[in-house]
Amino acid sequence: MQFRQRVYNFSPGPAMLPLPVMKQVQEELLNWRGMGASIIEISHRSKEFEAVLDETEALLRELMRIPNNYKVVFVSGGGQMQFSVVPLNLIALKPARKALFAQSGNFSQRARDEAKKYGTVLDVASSEDTRFDRIPQVPPAAELPRDASFFLITTNNTIMGTQWHTFPDTGEIPLVGDATSELLSREIDVTKFGLVFAGAQKNLGPAGFSVDIVREDLLGKQLPDTPKLLNLAQLASERSLTSTPNTFAIYVVNLVLHWLKEQGGVKAIQKVNEQKAALIYAVLDASKFYKGYALKESRSNMNVTFNLPTPALVETFCADALKAGLYALKGHRYKGGIRASIYNAMPLEGAQALVQFMKEFERTHG
Amino acid sequence: MQFRQRVYNFSPGPAMLPLPVMKQVQEELLNWRGMGASIIEISHRSKEFEAVLDETEALLRELMRIPNNYKVVFVSGGGQMQFSVVPLNLIALKPARKALFAQSGNFSQRARDEAKKYGTVLDVASSEDTRFDRIPQVPPAAELPRDASFFLITTNNTIMGTQWHTFPDTGEIPLVGDATSELLSREIDVTKFGLVFAGAQKNLGPAGFSVDIVREDLLGKQLPDTPKLLNLAQLASERSLTSTPNTFAIYVVNLVLHWLKEQGGVKAIQKVNEQKAALIYAVLDASKFYKGYALKESRSNMNVTFNLPTPALVETFCADALKAGLYALKGHRYKGGIRASIYNAMPLEGAQALVQFMKEFERTHG
Repeated sequence: MQFRQRVYNFSPGPAMLPLPVMKQVQEELLNWRGMGASIIEISHRSKEFEAVLDETEALLRELMRIPNNYKVVFVSGGGQMQFSVVPLNLIALKPARKALFAQSGNFSQRARDEAKKYGTVLDVASSEDTRFDRIPQVPPAAELPRDASFFLITTNNTIMGTQWHTFPDTGEIPLVGDATSELLSREIDVTKFGLVFAGAQKNLGPAGFSVDIVREDLLGKQLPDTPKLLNLAQLASERSLTSTPNTFAIYVVNLVLHWLKEQGGVKAIQKVNEQKAALIYAVLDASKFYKGYALKESRSNMNVTFNLPTPALVETFCADALKAGLYALKGHRYKGGIRASIYNAMPLEGAQALVQFMKEFERTHG
Repeated sequence: MQFRQRVYNFSPGPAMLPLPVMKQVQEELLNWRGMGASIIEISHRSKEFEAVLDETEALLRELMRIPNNYKVVFVSGGGQMQFSVVPLNLIALKPARKALFAQSGNFSQRARDEAKKYGTVLDVASSEDTRFDRIPQVPPAAELPRDASFFLITTNNTIMGTQWHTFPDTGEIPLVGDATSELLSREIDVTKFGLVFAGAQKNLGPAGFSVDIVREDLLGKQLPDTPKLLNLAQLASERSLTSTPNTFAIYVVNLVLHWLKEQGGVKAIQKVNEQKAALIYAVLDASKFYKGYALKESRSNMNVTFNLPTPALVETFCADALKAGLYALKGHRYKGGIRASIYNAMPLEGAQALVQFMKEFERTHG
């Protein structure tokens, strides 16, 4: 397929970026603000770039209402790099070096497996027995082991299409949220977390880059052999300029945050996100042809997962959808079926186009 | 200053990229190869992106004549991330966990300081006593400690403007080359190294990304707590797709390698690089006004460093140069003065323009 226009891109990540952002990147790529060079061709220590960096942090703080006792750190590598960063920096907070996990999908499992290198890990909740079709029940805070250094959850599960709608109470144990596939998609209370991180490639910008928001009293207890560019205390104290950072990613994130602010901020985009998801879930709920994967109370507003009667129909659905300009709808191999990723950058019209296509497809093949 | 045209950009890094590459990025940013999406908006596991990844490795192998017993690995984070990657992966090659260094500037010092976390470090050569104005003399291989796991050199010293023109013979000890500021600028014999790495932001592409070329028999001895995305053996076996990589960087590197091949490859660009450097060094050698920083036999063809009679003249030089469209000539704070970084992407005309400016400036202020 060859397209002259941009498609509605349902890729789970790297994902579509807002069109106005992409157009601005394109327009100023050769000559940024009259400097005669691209922003990716100037020093990360130039006053021009440092202003972009500072503004990016300020915008994120404003949009997410990040309190002053939290540091914002930009880290090389995506969400999965943080599976190392989190234990390296936090597991020594308590002498037992114990980390707790709630297993809600592939990525929480990967986070746990990586943390094993640095201490003891314990799954205190899991929905694996129902193939992660729901958010697991977490025991009350009083029942959690008190010697744990942190408790990690994946706040939105891209592959499964599930999302934590309320966060567990972990008492004194710092809650760590892997919000890679949902950061800035809804209002969250940062103070419920010791650390929230997100790989950029869903809602924030290009792949290979992460944002970590961490309560400052948790910093400084990193393991002695923590690589310096994964040391959050050092990065925080050096404004993420310990070495040359991914300047392109910071620049694009900056533009995305400006765009989000113009949309009315997180509260406003949350409404649109809920609207988009509700449109698609309504089709699933009204249909005997489509079968939603996630339990209703665990449904994600970022990734809508469902199946069709046969694998052959899944193939036909994806092929026909592509012809209709609806790209990257195939689900993850773990559970097959369809996944529609509808991050912040997906306009309402994209969800509407998908819904229309789904209805027609059911009429033809149902 | 506001420029309508692109300047000659002498930034030490992030550095200028070839204009045809930047134009292609710009042209296809919104719709890559008719997919209706940007290359930074599609899955790293799509067949289209995987083809770019494979081609990038193949081009690098071709241009550098990388033998089959070397793996090419793409790592998140720039050159300095490799200061952790190298000891994490190589220091356990011998039970003594000892690493040797030749100190030729700021970056070799940083590499040594980071390696201390993982074992014993030893400077077997240094030019610090002459403020790194030359490449230090390395003892013969027979005099190096036999229990060392590797020996690291910075093959080109960006800040000082020095370059190793012959590489030390380290016998059985694997030589590690930090070639961040020169990879692909001249023909090198990869087989002289156990590992060569380069952060991308000088000759290869955007910042925050590295290429590691490593002899495969050195892989698999990483320290047990090596973060998985810094584990070269794992990355190599998973084609650098252990997690979502920096897809923008891989794409730009791919275009840069195509461009380099069109220029005639490394041998051809080396000639141009030598020509550019020779033009500027000739002005230094003929002048009593300008004073080169590096000793002649240690001079770099990538970064030409020199001083002027007074700090005030340095300021005037930079300000006047900028007005003439010559950007980012100010030297590093470590040694002051001027630094002209003339990586592969700098055309001969840029060096010529600088030389003309230098002559005029000397005439006016000398």
